[in-house]
Amino acid sequence: MEKWDSSAGTSAFHMPEWMIQFADQKQEFNKRPTKIGRRSLSRSISQSSTDSYSSAASYTDSSDDETSPRDKQQKNSKGSSDFCVKNIKQAEFGRREIEIAEQEMPALMALRKRAQGEKPLAGAKIVGCTHITAQTAVLMETLGALGAQCRWAACNIYSTLNEVAAALAESGFPVFAWKGESEDDFWWCIDRCVNVEGWQPNMILDDGGDLTHWIYKKYPNMFKKIKGIVEESVTGVHRLYQLSKAGKLCVPAMNVNDSVTKQKFDNLYCCRESILDGLKRTTDMMFGGKQVVVCGYGEVGKGCCAALKAMGSIVYVTEIDPICALQACMDGFRLVKLNEVIRQVDIVITCTGNKNVVTREHLDRMKNSCIVCNMGHSNTEIDVASLRTPELTWERVRSQVDHVIWPDGKRIVLLAEGRLLNLSCSTVPTFVLSITATTQALALIELYNAPEGRYKQDVYLLPKKMDEYVASLHLPTFDAHLTELTDEQAKYLGLNKNGPFKPNYYRY
Amino acid sequence: MEKWDSSAGTSAFHMPEWMIQFADQKQEFNKRPTKIGRRSLSRSISQSSTDSYSSAASYTDSSDDETSPRDKQQKNSKGSSDFCVKNIKQAEFGRREIEIAEQEMPALMALRKRAQGEKPLAGAKIVGCTHITAQTAVLMETLGALGAQCRWAACNIYSTLNEVAAALAESGFPVFAWKGESEDDFWWCIDRCVNVEGWQPNMILDDGGDLTHWIYKKYPNMFKKIKGIVEESVTGVHRLYQLSKAGKLCVPAMNVNDSVTKQKFDNLYCCRESILDGLKRTTDMMFGGKQVVVCGYGEVGKGCCAALKAMGSIVYVTEIDPICALQACMDGFRLVKLNEVIRQVDIVITCTGNKNVVTREHLDRMKNSCIVCNMGHSNTEIDVASLRTPELTWERVRSQVDHVIWPDGKRIVLLAEGRLLNLSCSTVPTFVLSITATTQALALIELYNAPEGRYKQDVYLLPKKMDEYVASLHLPTFDAHLTELTDEQAKYLGLNKNGPFKPNYYRY
Amino acid sequence: MEKWDSSAGTSAFHMPEWMIQFADQKQEFNKRPTKIGRRSLSRSISQSSTDSYSSAASYTDSSDDETSPRDKQQKNSKGSSDFCVKNIKQAEFGRREIEIAEQEMPALMALRKRAQGEKPLAGAKIVGCTHITAQTAVLMETLGALGAQCRWAACNIYSTLNEVAAALAESGFPVFAWKGESEDDFWWCIDRCVNVEGWQPNMILDDGGDLTHWIYKKYPNMFKKIKGIVEESVTGVHRLYQLSKAGKLCVPAMNVNDSVTKQKFDNLYCCRESILDGLKRTTDMMFGGKQVVVCGYGEVGKGCCAALKAMGSIVYVTEIDPICALQACMDGFRLVKLNEVIRQVDIVITCTGNKNVVTREHLDRMKNSCIVCNMGHSNTEIDVASLRTPELTWERVRSQVDHVIWPDGKRIVLLAEGRLLNLSCSTVPTFVLSITATTQALALIELYNAPEGRYKQDVYLLPKKMDEYVASLHLPTFDAHLTELTDEQAKYLGLNKNGPFKPNYYRY
Amino acid sequence: MEKWDSSAGTSAFHMPEWMIQFADQKQEFNKRPTKIGRRSLSRSISQSSTDSYSSAASYTDSSDDETSPRDKQQKNSKGSSDFCVKNIKQAEFGRREIEIAEQEMPALMALRKRAQGEKPLAGAKIVGCTHITAQTAVLMETLGALGAQCRWAACNIYSTLNEVAAALAESGFPVFAWKGESEDDFWWCIDRCVNVEGWQPNMILDDGGDLTHWIYKKYPNMFKKIKGIVEESVTGVHRLYQLSKAGKLCVPAMNVNDSVTKQKFDNLYCCRESILDGLKRTTDMMFGGKQVVVCGYGEVGKGCCAALKAMGSIVYVTEIDPICALQACMDGFRLVKLNEVIRQVDIVITCTGNKNVVTREHLDRMKNSCIVCNMGHSNTEIDVASLRTPELTWERVRSQVDHVIWPDGKRIVLLAEGRLLNLSCSTVPTFVLSITATTQALALIELYNAPEGRYKQDVYLLPKKMDEYVASLHLPTFDAHLTELTDEQAKYLGLNKNGPFKPNYYRY
Repeated sequence: MEKWDSSAGTSAFHMPEWMIQFADQKQEFNKRPTKIGRRSLSRSISQSSTDSYSSAASYTDSSDDETSPRDKQQKNSKGSSDFCVKNIKQAEFGRREIEIAEQEMPALMALRKRAQGEKPLAGAKIVGCTHITAQTAVLMETLGALGAQCRWAACNIYSTLNEVAAALAESGFPVFAWKGESEDDFWWCIDRCVNVEGWQPNMILDDGGDLTHWIYKKYPNMFKKIKGIVEESVTGVHRLYQLSKAGKLCVPAMNVNDSVTKQKFDNLYCCRESILDGLKRTTDMMFGGKQVVVCGYGEVGKGCCAALKAMGSIVYVTEIDPICALQACMDGFRLVKLNEVIRQVDIVITCTGNKNVVTREHLDRMKNSCIVCNMGHSNTEIDVASLRTPELTWERVRSQVDHVIWPDGKRIVLLAEGRLLNLSCSTVPTFVLSITATTQALALIELYNAPEGRYKQDVYLLPKKMDEYVASLHLPTFDAHLTELTDEQAKYLGLNKNGPFKPNYYRY
Repeated sequence: MEKWDSSAGTSAFHMPEWMIQFADQKQEFNKRPTKIGRRSLSRSISQSSTDSYSSAASYTDSSDDETSPRDKQQKNSKGSSDFCVKNIKQAEFGRREIEIAEQEMPALMALRKRAQGEKPLAGAKIVGCTHITAQTAVLMETLGALGAQCRWAACNIYSTLNEVAAALAESGFPVFAWKGESEDDFWWCIDRCVNVEGWQPNMILDDGGDLTHWIYKKYPNMFKKIKGIVEESVTGVHRLYQLSKAGKLCVPAMNVNDSVTKQKFDNLYCCRESILDGLKRTTDMMFGGKQVVVCGYGEVGKGCCAALKAMGSIVYVTEIDPICALQACMDGFRLVKLNEVIRQVDIVITCTGNKNVVTREHLDRMKNSCIVCNMGHSNTEIDVASLRTPELTWERVRSQVDHVIWPDGKRIVLLAEGRLLNLSCSTVPTFVLSITATTQALALIELYNAPEGRYKQDVYLLPKKMDEYVASLHLPTFDAHLTELTDEQAKYLGLNKNGPFKPNYYRY
Repeated sequence: MEKWDSSAGTSAFHMPEWMIQFADQKQEFNKRPTKIGRRSLSRSISQSSTDSYSSAASYTDSSDDETSPRDKQQKNSKGSSDFCVKNIKQAEFGRREIEIAEQEMPALMALRKRAQGEKPLAGAKIVGCTHITAQTAVLMETLGALGAQCRWAACNIYSTLNEVAAALAESGFPVFAWKGESEDDFWWCIDRCVNVEGWQPNMILDDGGDLTHWIYKKYPNMFKKIKGIVEESVTGVHRLYQLSKAGKLCVPAMNVNDSVTKQKFDNLYCCRESILDGLKRTTDMMFGGKQVVVCGYGEVGKGCCAALKAMGSIVYVTEIDPICALQACMDGFRLVKLNEVIRQVDIVITCTGNKNVVTREHLDRMKNSCIVCNMGHSNTEIDVASLRTPELTWERVRSQVDHVIWPDGKRIVLLAEGRLLNLSCSTVPTFVLSITATTQALALIELYNAPEGRYKQDVYLLPKKMDEYVASLHLPTFDAHLTELTDEQAKYLGLNKNGPFKPNYYRY
Repeated sequence: MEKWDSSAGTSAFHMPEWMIQFADQKQEFNKRPTKIGRRSLSRSISQSSTDSYSSAASYTDSSDDETSPRDKQQKNSKGSSDFCVKNIKQAEFGRREIEIAEQEMPALMALRKRAQGEKPLAGAKIVGCTHITAQTAVLMETLGALGAQCRWAACNIYSTLNEVAAALAESGFPVFAWKGESEDDFWWCIDRCVNVEGWQPNMILDDGGDLTHWIYKKYPNMFKKIKGIVEESVTGVHRLYQLSKAGKLCVPAMNVNDSVTKQKFDNLYCCRESILDGLKRTTDMMFGGKQVVVCGYGEVGKGCCAALKAMGSIVYVTEIDPICALQACMDGFRLVKLNEVIRQVDIVITCTGNKNVVTREHLDRMKNSCIVCNMGHSNTEIDVASLRTPELTWERVRSQVDHVIWPDGKRIVLLAEGRLLNLSCSTVPTFVLSITATTQALALIELYNAPEGRYKQDVYLLPKKMDEYVASLHLPTFDAHLTELTDEQAKYLGLNKNGPFKPNYYRY
């Protein structure tokens, strides 16, 4: 076996600044009372929970009443009132959405089928905090079919589809979520999932880390019975590594964000499509012949570059890492510094995860009508703040599209105010959500069923075999036929016929 | 920091059969005397040392005499006879070749320039065993410029360029190598590099593991003074891991085969070009509209598929690993079992590293004129042995091209008798060799200069920072301009401005 | 000058059925009075004039009053009431739209600059009938700057942008158009452009042929003063060839639809982008790994196939023409009959211009969730009528998206009810419209200024030199630098240094 | 029937200089006697007849005797001596080559099968002058099977495969050709095909126009019985148009060079592959990351650009024609003047058909190791003559590869001395030759069988229906399945179900 040079890692990576800031926020959080008012917690919840989010439009919300769901008395048709949603009467609309989503999530449906015999989650009491969409509903109902009891809150105050929440409540899931929660509502909903008479969760499914955080702060004793945490987001995963480093992680946690399948789909394959989609929906521009600079040639940058090159754009790349830079060269892109091309390009796309990659100085030098957008994973990449100065005029020309106008008349077209273009201006295909949801389900099964001692109080990547299993569950969608090793071949390669098929350091 | 799940790896990977066979061979080797005759060691030396190898044609060999170099008395112009090459008079031709190669290996030339001040290899006594080509000569002379003394043998009995060996000998390098060595010559040359009065090597540079093996068996005490081994080949690296597992590795070893830069260039980028080159040079076929099945979608398979798709072929893929299979789907290839398409395809290409991927049964079902070739890393992928039966006629139509003719007249076009197409029927670009050579030089520097205790008796990957450094030395070739982090950005990301820039598990 | 080789057509091409039908409609038209009611002319106007059309949403129309513009009394700020638009007060909004469009139509702006000296259209009286959008406004104001007087109607009852029409009226253009005209309004508007005291048009700019038709039927004597017709659409061009064949064309006509530049942009390059855009906006699907069949491999099919292949779809092609079929093969697409793949594909796209390419039988055999759409140039390609039967349920799930549900639950996703996906569900980039508008302007200039006898009563293609000129006016957009022939080279090639550069039969 | 629109050409195109030069040569030719010596005619025969030509290596020629075939007495096994080849005993080797070629030319074999019933060339007496290769042999034997008698000479003094010529002679074809003819031999062979007692040709198949020229000059009366000329080459076609213009063409001629199928395959598809092949075989370079400038974006340039872009090169384009320039932009290439990039590029490729596109000034400014080559259709594009000056050193480093060395040590890598890279350094796939040969056969059939009056004394393009037929005969190679129009569809489109399917001006 090849030895992973972990010592090198230790010395090389210091705790990044944004992690430290994040940690500070959390400490600040401790000092504040929870209930002093609906706006009081605004700086305490994770950024991801307030990000704008372009979910599919709600079908029935146009004439919504203004009463807070917390003030309503609602019952589902079986008489239960253990939920809090906008309007239980929208359940039927939500059910249709869920049924449509089921058709596009064959992997979860396959898991349900298997569960007719064994119930790998029998006895599991899962508390969850995720976006509440039709796809999540398919996940929740799958967990139910696998034997689990669930209670659920939303991880984002804007993203809940009210009809879907209603449908879940109607079919018996204690759901506490609606679109447009206040921050106070947000924590109230989470609390209602956790703190219930006669209910002790033994598994956590989190997206962003707010649920985990809440239990840590309010009900630390609960962890005695909790078998593990499954966390999906970059932010939440970093929080877990922080806890682990600080020696405060008291249960095993599974980082499903960095599984191979999820990474490739969320980044390379999804961005290859969403960069085109996001640009078209906002600007109707033609890609052919356009000059584009893509900052960063990681998976996201690779996806953006491939798509634009294929559509006839001329693409330049900037990079700080010489290995990624050499890849860009071999893939046929001129590697430049941003300054070299900033005067000539028609589009600037950031994909770095870094801050201030596009500065005011760059913006000043761009040509008229240059489009600027961000595909990386934070809203720091473009120094948008620097554009909020008196001499510049902002003009909102469409949803998510601003013209920033210089005194000489030059216009820069800024998309989504520098936030993520793909989340703000395009939609995430169900297929990608299916991969994420299946990964979450398998991680829950693994942690719940793992023999004592397999997982310690640490953060784990999804076992490669499970990563492979998620992939295999999605192959039928493409009518793809996997080859099986013969006994002879398996012996020759020293592999188990069912995998895992690659060493851990394999790069795909 | 993310924890690498090394425990999972341990349970998953058993010692593969071919490793066991290899180990057996070595034991067999012990029982045999070395000098019983020129053919006697044929089963003992590593396969790579006898692989056919299409190096550039020798310019002056046509009228070579038949005297064995071991029986000749030769001196270079400075009066030294500490070498053994075919013909020292060819030195001038070889020098020209080396000078041309220098122009295409800017990274090594950059290292030489730096070495004008400091000599990081001062005091190093390197014994090397590699292919002896103009590119290797540039490496050796660079090591010399960095302060090292070198003695060198060939790692393959066919691949030595005699003129280059002569040029090295003329400029004072003790080189023992010629094209067409017998196996006995092979070991004699290695021995002459190692076993010299007044010379104790302290570094090993190996390609295939034969040199390392020889010292282990004959001069184990030498390891007391040896600071480390740098090994380039898949085979040699596996031998080292075996030694490490068996607790017999007594010095640190650097696996440069699995460095990111080398892997991507040797596999993805190089095969993307060499599959087209190899097929054209052997068959002059047109790619457009041809149906091709590529077995295996690792880096090599990805390169082959991308190239053929770009040339207008219709490409099918077979895979055993569901993750790679899903990548094939997303990249636009139909994932099939070989049997599904074997009757219809025009070309079959193996890229698996597995054995008997193409069986006699498949070959029986192929259509007339189907081309069969191997791009994987062994000659086992196509069951060529099964074609050596009386009812089939073999017809050699060109160098490296056989028609195998069925009784009904059907012809299969077999390339390179199932050996590696890219090594046999195309050439490796100097740029790829430059990356390998630079990686080797840096690995030698690192091991030689590492403070006590940084490396133990184990096998290490090249530190990521050095991997990045190799890449950065090659960027000027493409006139590529790397961006530097600002202090603020480095702090934000928690990175050193000089790298390394990525965590160890990053997949590129 | 290039002349449509109509004699060649005579032997090979018979009058197609849809032309005959069209001719019949026209005869029918003669029998009907114009003013018997708002619906009375529905079968008489050209299909293109009632096609749904997804123009940019109107910014100010939400609270529109219901009064017919024909019943309103409006004046612009200069006191003129020679126009009929929805609401003259929206002029300011429209002006902003026009100004933005000007930035993206540099070729027309360049023509305006030239016109500061000479006025090539001085004395021209142009009556026009086109879509009324910001881009058309830039064209009209350019024609004005070149010296022409214009009167304008809309060629489509849905496509007028009311604000833009208002802006044109405000700046003095007699425009008669609004969104949502009745058929009676449609002809009334055209008539108001033509039949004015003291105004005798001498040039016609038409899109669809309705304006030309109207003059033919009502004011045939006008043609005595008309110097020529410029026609942009497929439909209108066919009408002109019919007239020519019948010996009834009494002025020269310029077919700008078949100019090289327009063809390549409207079809190949534009469809390469709009197929992706149209599918994403309607279905949010992921392209990677999807199996797609594209019916027809003309320019539109080529564009669709290239885009989907680049996005990782597996694309099959059907063709009737063996030359196009061979191109599909060489470009890497499996050429199949629709029946061979209809059960397995995820998407069916028609690009043939033919009728009933996708029949009810095909639709019955498609798999669940298959998406069906049309990119060809008529709504006949998919037999949508066959789906309007009692056993099938239609469910409108989004704008332009219908689920057609079979009794067993199978759903087909039908986009835009089989009408053109790119017109209905995506937008046409300004750059494409700029090419069309520039071509129209140059054609008007050419016909207006041509010396007596250059053009006869026939249909002409745009002279190649003008086609090249349109292209050259658009190169600056891409910062593209054209090379000029030296005198020596021009002589060697036998070319004029300013073009034309290719023989007429050149295929590009 | 399609007719070359020569009148259109008249106004736009003047007689190019190289045509005039060519005409002058011909006049010069008249003044010289034919037999004054083997070198005497060197300036009179067409350039194409002396171009170097990389045909497959001859298998049996290594120990050839030096006797001129004209001085030998040879008989085939049937006793005939009506031929002149190098060595009739090589027939068996040649037959094997022909048999292999037959497998790859299914279209001709299909024509033979049809000919079992009808003999469309019964009575035809064809005199031919083409390259004599295995593929030509398949064509000749097909013509024989269709009923024709043939006599054949070579159109190039280097390109004849002696074994193939022997095999044809052995099977009864009067062939007069060998590799390494003198110019005197060249005309002697042609004369022996034409001027035979009791043989009056009635069809001409020419490649380059030398045969046609010979008959014009020596036996003009023969044209009374000749039904037509089929000419394949650019040069020969231009000669025919000259004759036509001058009113001297006395029989119909078919220009098969400009048929759609042939053009696309010879240029776009073939060059897409041969640019890579030619560069690899000569330089072993890596394409990834290289900067390349391609001069000219016609079909050849489009093929080169597409291939290099796909292999990861960064490609710049130069153009004189704004339409092609705009296509380059939309396809994603920066359009530049050569001077803008000449200092930075690694490769310069000419594809223009023009002269002095790369001048000495450009060559002076190129960077060290820059590769220069020509893919256009003449050897004039690079000003190679300007490099033959005393201060520059030429060094031949491989076959077809010269280093030109500047006084400061800079080296330019010049391929094939500026002649066509694809002809000199790569091979033409049989599939392309099959298309050409089939086109020639069909053109012969058409001219031979055309009713009186269909063709006049003019130059014609292949009728589109026959062009389509050639394509359809090659579809089975790709297992491609053509769709047939239904009666209803054919009527709707106004097309015959069997084609032709497109108007003459269609651009594909």
